[in-house]
Amino acid sequence: MHIAFLGLGQIGGSVARAASAAGLATRISAWSPGGKGPRAGAADGVMAAASAAEAIRGADLIVLAAPPLACLDLLDELAGPLAAAVGADSVITDVASTKTVIVERARSHGLRFVGGHPMAGREAAGYEAADPELVPPEPADPAAVDRVAALAEACGARPIQLTADVHDAAVAAISHMPLVVSMALAESMAAEPDWETARALAAGGWAGMTRLAGGDTTMGVGILATNGPATAARLRAVRDAIDGWIQLLALGESDPALLEVRIRQARDLALGAAASRGAGADDGPAPR
Amino acid sequence: MHIAFLGLGQIGGSVARAASAAGLATRISAWSPGGKGPRAGAADGVMAAASAAEAIRGADLIVLAAPPLACLDLLDELAGPLAAAVGADSVITDVASTKTVIVERARSHGLRFVGGHPMAGREAAGYEAADPELVPPEPADPAAVDRVAALAEACGARPIQLTADVHDAAVAAISHMPLVVSMALAESMAAEPDWETARALAAGGWAGMTRLAGGDTTMGVGILATNGPATAARLRAVRDAIDGWIQLLALGESDPALLEVRIRQARDLALGAAASRGAGADDGPAPR
Repeated sequence: MHIAFLGLGQIGGSVARAASAAGLATRISAWSPGGKGPRAGAADGVMAAASAAEAIRGADLIVLAAPPLACLDLLDELAGPLAAAVGADSVITDVASTKTVIVERARSHGLRFVGGHPMAGREAAGYEAADPELVPPEPADPAAVDRVAALAEACGARPIQLTADVHDAAVAAISHMPLVVSMALAESMAAEPDWETARALAAGGWAGMTRLAGGDTTMGVGILATNGPATAARLRAVRDAIDGWIQLLALGESDPALLEVRIRQARDLALGAAASRGAGADDGPAPR
Repeated sequence: MHIAFLGLGQIGGSVARAASAAGLATRISAWSPGGKGPRAGAADGVMAAASAAEAIRGADLIVLAAPPLACLDLLDELAGPLAAAVGADSVITDVASTKTVIVERARSHGLRFVGGHPMAGREAAGYEAADPELVPPEPADPAAVDRVAALAEACGARPIQLTADVHDAAVAAISHMPLVVSMALAESMAAEPDWETARALAAGGWAGMTRLAGGDTTMGVGILATNGPATAARLRAVRDAIDGWIQLLALGESDPALLEVRIRQARDLALGAAASRGAGADDGPAPR
């Protein structure tokens, strides 16, 4: 099939290569505002288009490979100035980390859209090994879902179908809330008068907890602008847990036996989650 | 000099090897409750003693290589049942992550004590490359400080002198508060009805933010039992930052331009701290 990419960065490029290698794509076209990604894709058989309209004309599948807010803009264009270039049979999907707002935008435009999320958080293992989430459209459109699932499978992934709100609540818990907590750590240090002393001692623990805060800004804006309430709900839960710790520690008279019970419980939860993913951190997809 | 270790785990073992390799130690003796560490040290020239008293008799330097609460017990023993085996010239140091409570205990016993903290958080680069903190005793005892500093330098480290409260506030910020936040993340997930869905999607971001919670329980208990108030103070600062984010995100109508300002600021703070340590995370000691 003919697959068209609007935007072609790290994730889109990986998907395009996999679709080409698996023989799923007979034609791959791509357009991005700067044109850098599509030109770089030439080695993988990507045809860089001069315009978005040229890229998507005749495509069986249109992949929006852009951050969340850019996906919203692209959906508006596909329903507006680009509408004439979208084929009657074309299916549209995306790779953004949030789904509720994007799926609702596509629905409001009447586009044939299957939301996708390749879980690029597992970049360490390569996108090819990731399990993408798909948000099937309503009313049901099995042919459209099949087309997007075929792309996921060409990438060696096993798609999981979730509704948009279930997806967004889940990724708020395991990805978007941790991002905000990481930023809150970085912010909290700035106000401290002895931060210069402390930062000179900072080691692996601090680096690990603030790594997410050092990530891509545009991605962070897009995620939090489109998944704010679900993220805030998870932040309330972690804030309540922190409040419990403050009460326990503030007096400096904590009973070591009580501390041990709570620390052991937290450890079991942390390691239990790691075990459910496989042997540990960053080790690719969970065995299921 | 003769160096005696009470407790000999990962950190103590590294210090013993370095002291031996550097030619600083003419004799290394060690005792631990289980005896496993001292026996394993035989290959590095460590003499496993049958009792704590035997290990420390005649030692120029006694290293308490144990978690914080065990260090407190050892100080009580050195001032009690072991007092007769402590030489008049012996200097005592430790490797625990907290200093205020331990230094105060040693002072109350009238022991000749220089608190030490090898910053084992930099384990990735090996203890040998770490910069230890030393807490000099009051009244001043330069000879005792020199003896402990010589041990640090034998490990290839450059000791930094801090008072106990400055040390504890700094490590609360960069190590103990992040530990508690990591545990709070793990705890907050347990109560969520959709945690099974979410955990199946957990990837590198979640793993990184909960890694500290999966650490050693005894160490965590010792740290939080002896540095509770300073840790609670830093937790309040991060909780306030999280509260600010909740306000910003809860309505789901955040202005992307405002989000971008705050995300960029947090990113600069996170990357600024990384830069002050060197090129990035886990890359060993900061160039100074």
